[in-house]
Amino acid sequence: METVYIGVDIGGTKTEVAIYDAACWQRRASRVFNTEPSRGCRTLVEDIYNNCRHMLRTDSIPIASVAAVGVASPGPLDLKTGRIVHIPTMGFRDEPLVDWLQQGFGRPICLENDANCAAYAESRFGRGRGKRVVVYITVSTGIGCGLVVDGRIVDGAHWAAGELGHLTVERQGEPCPCGKKGCLERYASGTAIARRASMRTGTAMEAKEVFAAARTGDTLCLTVIREAAEALGMAVAAVYQLLDPDVVILGGSVMKDADLLGPLLQESLAACVQPLEGRRLDVVLSGLDGQQVVLGAAAYAAANLKMKP
Amino acid sequence: METVYIGVDIGGTKTEVAIYDAACWQRRASRVFNTEPSRGCRTLVEDIYNNCRHMLRTDSIPIASVAAVGVASPGPLDLKTGRIVHIPTMGFRDEPLVDWLQQGFGRPICLENDANCAAYAESRFGRGRGKRVVVYITVSTGIGCGLVVDGRIVDGAHWAAGELGHLTVERQGEPCPCGKKGCLERYASGTAIARRASMRTGTAMEAKEVFAAARTGDTLCLTVIREAAEALGMAVAAVYQLLDPDVVILGGSVMKDADLLGPLLQESLAACVQPLEGRRLDVVLSGLDGQQVVLGAAAYAAANLKMKP
Repeated sequence: METVYIGVDIGGTKTEVAIYDAACWQRRASRVFNTEPSRGCRTLVEDIYNNCRHMLRTDSIPIASVAAVGVASPGPLDLKTGRIVHIPTMGFRDEPLVDWLQQGFGRPICLENDANCAAYAESRFGRGRGKRVVVYITVSTGIGCGLVVDGRIVDGAHWAAGELGHLTVERQGEPCPCGKKGCLERYASGTAIARRASMRTGTAMEAKEVFAAARTGDTLCLTVIREAAEALGMAVAAVYQLLDPDVVILGGSVMKDADLLGPLLQESLAACVQPLEGRRLDVVLSGLDGQQVVLGAAAYAAANLKMKP
Repeated sequence: METVYIGVDIGGTKTEVAIYDAACWQRRASRVFNTEPSRGCRTLVEDIYNNCRHMLRTDSIPIASVAAVGVASPGPLDLKTGRIVHIPTMGFRDEPLVDWLQQGFGRPICLENDANCAAYAESRFGRGRGKRVVVYITVSTGIGCGLVVDGRIVDGAHWAAGELGHLTVERQGEPCPCGKKGCLERYASGTAIARRASMRTGTAMEAKEVFAAARTGDTLCLTVIREAAEALGMAVAAVYQLLDPDVVILGGSVMKDADLLGPLLQESLAACVQPLEGRRLDVVLSGLDGQQVVLGAAAYAAANLKMKP
């Protein structure tokens, strides 16, 4: 009987499920559906289960072929009890995600932070392949970061490592809903770019519109993007100073405008990283085409199964 | 025949060597001598060897009892070739330290960054014992940082992880000899505290004098210390955001004045770390009494010997 792994990527607006061949990590099938957090986490679990069953049936794969289900979720998570601790944007709090999924699937469930799953996928299949220290940073609605060292996810004492979005980049900077000041997310997330440009131009804009306006010469929008790049460069520099990665891989919706953001980011980064003989600042875009989280969730579940038999 | 390990702690002014029992990690003997870097790295190696031979003879320990020699050195190091890459303050460049020591001792040599050795000692014998993610920060002439996760040193792609001294804490801050601006070391190292207080008071002061003056109410000196604590708090916060440690352990000469610096540091830290349910900011002083580097060098050599037979 063939063996497959299921990956699940829980997002604020969309959730994706996918089936992978255990032998070659080819994607066999996938489905995307709306997350609808207002219906509660338990309903989301049912949606995940039903979509997976549908996928399996369509491909005539018996549930017994599923070696494990890997689930990537925003954090903070409690990986010891398999719970979502609190996702304010989705209204989820203390949700026993792993237990619920376990009841449905009857297969091993492996929960991990979404940015960590992406970093894991990059380290096995992406631009971090064959490298020892791989950092993945997602710049999207929020900003997250995952770290893999020697093939292992480094997720911290409370599974809260890589919370780059709330790194202080300016001590007396903009107040953040988290209660601190000058968090990276206040400058460089898609939300921040949109908000800051809307405020300065007096017109409501989305992040992609800010980039479009900057391209046609709007100096207010270009300044917002430059400030985002400066903040992001400082954060990536902190990653270099603390972790000395082989490679930093960038993904997330904001990185679709890397043609504009990238060079400004490199400039800011170079100003903030200590020069070191033989070190190249290898900051690249993900080549996994938005599949890094769901693929990483599945692949990490497989690795976890081997580590803890 | 009994088994012992030798630890070596190469410092800018003093070098320490010590012998430890492999069974219980009790210190059998130790010696401290002046480093005299101007006589060259090769001479330093001879001094290390001669002091170790003297220690062994005095304790009647045959060289064959030495399972390995662990050497802690300031960085950057190339651990693949066992070389010191460059220590500008000591005038060392491209020094084949491991080869030279190997020729002398004829025993396995294990080289590691000094802050990493300290972190390793803390994780095995100190305040990080039994914890998963242990960070050690030394605040002395310079500022360094070591990281141990699940008993392994995380030293980075170029063995340059934990270079906290050159973390940018203020983008447009004081220029640093490294070429960047606003590095942590420009505010919070012993050298920086002395320099900044001397400038403001118009009197040449050492760091310990700055603390003494602040204690008697000198507001200029207190401001310098407050600014050091703010910078250090921002850096420790970056460590929390990126690594989510169980504990951060502080050592180094500046920490002798932790009664004054500590509360200010905690205040700054709390302002820069994202609050997280169930997370305590566990920032403590080392209890290893200045032995953490030399002990860690010996213990890590022992662990390395087991990992790579």
